[in-house]
Amino acid sequence: MSAPIEFFFDFSSPYGYIASRKIDEIVANEGRETRWKPIMLGPAFKATGNRPLIEQSIKGEYAAKDCERFARYMKIPWVLPDPFPIAALAVARGFYWLDDDDPVLAKCFAKAAFNTYFGNGRDISAPGVAAAVAAGLGVDAEKFEAAINDPSIKERLRWESEDSLKRGVFGSPFIIVDGEAFWGADRLWMVKKWLRTGGW
Amino acid sequence: MSAPIEFFFDFSSPYGYIASRKIDEIVANEGRETRWKPIMLGPAFKATGNRPLIEQSIKGEYAAKDCERFARYMKIPWVLPDPFPIAALAVARGFYWLDDDDPVLAKCFAKAAFNTYFGNGRDISAPGVAAAVAAGLGVDAEKFEAAINDPSIKERLRWESEDSLKRGVFGSPFIIVDGEAFWGADRLWMVKKWLRTGGW
Repeated sequence: MSAPIEFFFDFSSPYGYIASRKIDEIVANEGRETRWKPIMLGPAFKATGNRPLIEQSIKGEYAAKDCERFARYMKIPWVLPDPFPIAALAVARGFYWLDDDDPVLAKCFAKAAFNTYFGNGRDISAPGVAAAVAAGLGVDAEKFEAAINDPSIKERLRWESEDSLKRGVFGSPFIIVDGEAFWGADRLWMVKKWLRTGGW
Repeated sequence: MSAPIEFFFDFSSPYGYIASRKIDEIVANEGRETRWKPIMLGPAFKATGNRPLIEQSIKGEYAAKDCERFARYMKIPWVLPDPFPIAALAVARGFYWLDDDDPVLAKCFAKAAFNTYFGNGRDISAPGVAAAVAAGLGVDAEKFEAAINDPSIKERLRWESEDSLKRGVFGSPFIIVDGEAFWGADRLWMVKKWLRTGGW
């Protein structure tokens, strides 16, 4: 069994959302599996001297339009949420708590959280909203809220974010295929080709 | 006759080089024409607070690898030149001088200049090298060197760069299709689709 394809993303990343709608299909078609890894990009942005694309002057206006066009192309819901960006700590922590027991449930939660934020435009940064998203999948909301306040879960997210940066992950989405790194929703076609051909 | 597709690039831009190898084919297949517009990205980088990708820590290493992989995918020559990046004033000015009389010759010159820099790794920033590239296409090297020192040609490049920034061009390559803006070599497939369908 080959190692899973790693899919790194920040819940506050529009291109992470876009890629999340396609990555599993692409990977499954090649007989492989994904491992989703939400991270907090703040430290990476600090290390690279970068800022969220949409906050940047001129570039930001283009990016907002590009996301909308990309989503329309993919026929998926899209709104530029307000507030944006957010510190998506609650959902990222909740993801890892779910992931420990049930990786599929964690993926479902990630999809629901992304859809709540970029599909419906609802702020997912508050723990109560994150818990409500989980509750929509049958997860106990109280337990969820307790878990995301657990120091070990907080530490887990911090570790995953730091570890990903050490491995060169500086943006979202970021996909690692058998040691080969691909950055951006616009590299999905390359990921597909790489999986199919084993590289070129 | 529809307006040409505008192809903006900086001669010091690797992704500009990559796109230059494909843009005319994509556009011609849809029965349209391109207009190439070299620009100096310095002012745009200042306006957006940006820096050349390859100079950025962590991101830069990825970008160098991504360019090499992209070029290999396209089966085109590629080296990361040294020095890199360069201020590609001489070739950009020379382009506009040629373009006034013979847009096809100007494109040939741009292709040869890109190939000299990113295909063979030879620094094209010196006026003498730029003139030698033009001479390889049968252009008089002395006239070329005189032209790129002409204040009106210098002003032309300054104007094109400033005008492009006013129109929202902040990176290279940047393609405008009937008012619709596409940034990046990784948007070529979208440009193709947009041309074919008239948008979505």
